[in-house]
Amino acid sequence: MSFTNLDLINAVDGFPYYQVDPDLYAASISTYYELRVADHDYALGYVLPSVAEVFRGVAHWEFDDEDRILTLTGGTNAAVRSAIVAATLEALRTTGHFKVLEKWRNELYPVYGRNKELLFNVERSASPLFGVVTYGVHLTAYVKKEDGFRIWIPRRAKTKQTYGGMLDNAVAGGIATGEVAFESLVRECAEEASLPEDLVRSKARVAGCITYFYIRDKSAGGETGLMQPEVEYVYDLELPEDVVPKPGDDEVEEFYLWTVDEVKEHLEKGEFKPNCAAAMIDFFIRHGMLTPENEKDFIEIVARLHRKFEFPTL
Amino acid sequence: MSFTNLDLINAVDGFPYYQVDPDLYAASISTYYELRVADHDYALGYVLPSVAEVFRGVAHWEFDDEDRILTLTGGTNAAVRSAIVAATLEALRTTGHFKVLEKWRNELYPVYGRNKELLFNVERSASPLFGVVTYGVHLTAYVKKEDGFRIWIPRRAKTKQTYGGMLDNAVAGGIATGEVAFESLVRECAEEASLPEDLVRSKARVAGCITYFYIRDKSAGGETGLMQPEVEYVYDLELPEDVVPKPGDDEVEEFYLWTVDEVKEHLEKGEFKPNCAAAMIDFFIRHGMLTPENEKDFIEIVARLHRKFEFPTL
Repeated sequence: MSFTNLDLINAVDGFPYYQVDPDLYAASISTYYELRVADHDYALGYVLPSVAEVFRGVAHWEFDDEDRILTLTGGTNAAVRSAIVAATLEALRTTGHFKVLEKWRNELYPVYGRNKELLFNVERSASPLFGVVTYGVHLTAYVKKEDGFRIWIPRRAKTKQTYGGMLDNAVAGGIATGEVAFESLVRECAEEASLPEDLVRSKARVAGCITYFYIRDKSAGGETGLMQPEVEYVYDLELPEDVVPKPGDDEVEEFYLWTVDEVKEHLEKGEFKPNCAAAMIDFFIRHGMLTPENEKDFIEIVARLHRKFEFPTL
Repeated sequence: MSFTNLDLINAVDGFPYYQVDPDLYAASISTYYELRVADHDYALGYVLPSVAEVFRGVAHWEFDDEDRILTLTGGTNAAVRSAIVAATLEALRTTGHFKVLEKWRNELYPVYGRNKELLFNVERSASPLFGVVTYGVHLTAYVKKEDGFRIWIPRRAKTKQTYGGMLDNAVAGGIATGEVAFESLVRECAEEASLPEDLVRSKARVAGCITYFYIRDKSAGGETGLMQPEVEYVYDLELPEDVVPKPGDDEVEEFYLWTVDEVKEHLEKGEFKPNCAAAMIDFFIRHGMLTPENEKDFIEIVARLHRKFEFPTL
């Protein structure tokens, strides 16, 4: 099985586009419930009907079956809304109804409104239930040699429940509520790759973000079909030859130092975690390794890596 | 008057988004005619009603007023279709009906179908009449100094009919039918900035593309309101300090070598040609000069710079 770069993008950006097929888009949308909070008449995420059904009759949640809207009605500020969301999720966790909640993280993710105001926080593992936008950082660490780049690629521990044994970006992680993107990166660089903080602070630089609308499949663990629109800020870090990333926890098995061609081979084999493949392809585009001349889907790939969501973002 | 970066993006990507406001989008779309070619049931561009009206009754053009579709019916291959389009446009040019045709370029732009096949060629100055996707290259030339980047910025001749006196990217130009992006860049680098060919071939590198849906205003010259979805491949070129770009024709008045802050100041003042401002902002994002921490509209800007079109692209 060999995957083109566009295949890899399709795997991570699986939600249909209105621009491409309005009918398919409308058909997809019509099966979901919009998530809203009271007094804000726009969607914050899409909820599967099987998930929405569980909220029927739960205090502070309102059902509109005609327009297919699930509204959090309790609370007029972020603190109260967050408390209600937490209480509801804690209750659902206890019942064991949702598999994704078995990986409860005790980490909060922010959900923003149209004025970039925090509307509420949600337990990280529950964010795909609501289909809300989440935020993360992905770093590509590389060494520049005379004959080209070498890229540091970690392999995830086979025992990891999500995407076990797959290839990853040097460092990647989610941005929790109250955290600034760059500080999140610094923290993850220490935790995941044991990179010296001063090096990261002085040399890592942001180079944009990738945005895509992922639909969870089996490899993600838990319920499939949940929607996960994601923003991943992408960072580049050129490492000196004597700095070697080391797994800082048991989540990474080992780090490889590969040529661009080696990375491309493993991408083709589908060995990368889906959103890490996307970040890798974005790196190749930004650094001129994929070009309009050698990648026939260049324009499509670039647009798909930077999706404009239906939902507000930070 | 001070413009934020998002203001500048709004100026170049002015077509509404379905995702943001389905009603506004539908209202906009409903006023246009879709451009199609026979046996291809999808839009290649949007045509203003005032433009479409001119094609009514013209041989080889079919009108569908109910579904608002303007179809080129003559020809089953690119050569014949191109000949018909050329004949129609030559006739319209003679009548002097369209102001944009007064700037006839004798240069053909390609229009592609969903299989990336060439459907027909169209005279460059006429492409906004059909609202079809056009392709170009934009190069940022810079010098790396100890204290940061210096960026070469040309000012367009005040006598230029389009965007006269405005600031530009070091090199920019359209990709004609049959031309490969990189070769187009090499040609433009010689013509517009007198840059040595071997330097460009060895050092210029592509770093992605920006895509946006421009609606022409007065500064573009000719009819206003015409739609111009564009793909601009973006290139970076680090120049040695002793290589100085020089205007190769009378289209450029002079080149400045500015710090990033100086460029930002002139962006804020709205002095850049709209799509050159967009390419500049993309450069700042890719090089870490705009960050999630210093640009509040970071995510929105990145997505808007990489629009996914309703129309097929190469």
